[in-house]
Amino acid sequence: MDPIKMMPDERLDDLQIKGYKILQKTDGFCFGMDAVLLSDYAKPKKGAKVMDLCSGTGIIPILLEAKYPVSQVEGLEYQERFVEMAQRSIQINGQEGCISMSQGDVKEVREHYAQDSFDVVTCNPPYMTGSHGLTNEDFSKAVARHEILCSLEDVIKASKWLLKPTGHLVMVHRPFRLAEILYMLKQYKLEPKRMRLVYPYVDKEPNMVLIDAVKGGKQRITVDPPLIVYNKDGSYTEEIYKIYGEE
Amino acid sequence: MDPIKMMPDERLDDLQIKGYKILQKTDGFCFGMDAVLLSDYAKPKKGAKVMDLCSGTGIIPILLEAKYPVSQVEGLEYQERFVEMAQRSIQINGQEGCISMSQGDVKEVREHYAQDSFDVVTCNPPYMTGSHGLTNEDFSKAVARHEILCSLEDVIKASKWLLKPTGHLVMVHRPFRLAEILYMLKQYKLEPKRMRLVYPYVDKEPNMVLIDAVKGGKQRITVDPPLIVYNKDGSYTEEIYKIYGEE
Repeated sequence: MDPIKMMPDERLDDLQIKGYKILQKTDGFCFGMDAVLLSDYAKPKKGAKVMDLCSGTGIIPILLEAKYPVSQVEGLEYQERFVEMAQRSIQINGQEGCISMSQGDVKEVREHYAQDSFDVVTCNPPYMTGSHGLTNEDFSKAVARHEILCSLEDVIKASKWLLKPTGHLVMVHRPFRLAEILYMLKQYKLEPKRMRLVYPYVDKEPNMVLIDAVKGGKQRITVDPPLIVYNKDGSYTEEIYKIYGEE
Repeated sequence: MDPIKMMPDERLDDLQIKGYKILQKTDGFCFGMDAVLLSDYAKPKKGAKVMDLCSGTGIIPILLEAKYPVSQVEGLEYQERFVEMAQRSIQINGQEGCISMSQGDVKEVREHYAQDSFDVVTCNPPYMTGSHGLTNEDFSKAVARHEILCSLEDVIKASKWLLKPTGHLVMVHRPFRLAEILYMLKQYKLEPKRMRLVYPYVDKEPNMVLIDAVKGGKQRITVDPPLIVYNKDGSYTEEIYKIYGEE
């Protein structure tokens, strides 16, 4: 086996599945529970061709290939450094046959990908609008959290182009933007068909929402049972353990 | 005290608050938990002027006057028989000073009420679209459940007319229509600002959603903690007891 190429500001984390690893920056944006829940909620079907937008260091493509019998996962990411790190992680895991990472702008998918060509689009986009809550943190972190390079509308527009008819856009986002998200999905004829709210505790406001929209779907949404993350004593709930594959 | 006038097909139910009662038809649509949760979620401020659309036998106006220091509650209902029953209940409870019930069509509020004249509009509308799930039950029950005389859009349009700027439309509905509801509210510039999902059990899909939209409000929604109705053993949760005022 070739030696792993790592930069001094990188760390290699174990994903606890098939021995897969991921390179992340020690001082940068690291993936969180959002990515794990999104990859679980997306559940692509056998042979599905998947596009992951705002892919960062490739956590979603890596997890999707690890968990589901997909045929192909493309990851699209704007920041060169993250694309290159994702490519090394994929190589470390031997996932080159299924996953490919590309540098590119979500706003330009029409120029690089065929229309109606994906079964599933996943996205864990920046959550904050404009400069809302923006601090003078480093640029690559800010881009992951704020709609600087990629807005909600950019993601939805790109998905509309990329998805086959009846294809799925599966997203994780913040509940405070729920009305805006459902509105915009419907505007672009990506019908919200399924959603799940993630509540840290059973008596707290939700801090994440998972949404599955179908291109050209009929109007009717299923709201799933609540996903509760912690028991009252602060331990993870049984369902979270299941999603992390540690039953 | 005058004797209570009751018809043979009516029953008089105790509301467990201030000794108030409500007349309902023994063989007709009776109010449920929806109405109780809606009156609790609406929480009109002191002196508020409230309009209740699709008011039926007046349960919402009666509960709002019982619980909150509102100045005036109007109930609008299409079916003569229900209007007349509500008027008798209001009389039995001595609520005539605050509540008035009128027969009328939600589609014609412009002709009967001044624009921008209410602080709060409440509505527990028919949940089912068109004839979806319609059986050959009696007409007045069908009207309470199906959008025969009053659609979601009729309610939203009427509210838009009736509400003062920054006034609230508070509704209870079924989660399967959530995307449609939020979309339509935003179309009519009634911004969804708060919502709460009601889950019968902590591990089940929600069966109700409470929504509070503000006329001309800014885009940002607060999703409340889940409202769980039953404990695992089938008893009511503490919060439901609180809402029913039986702490």
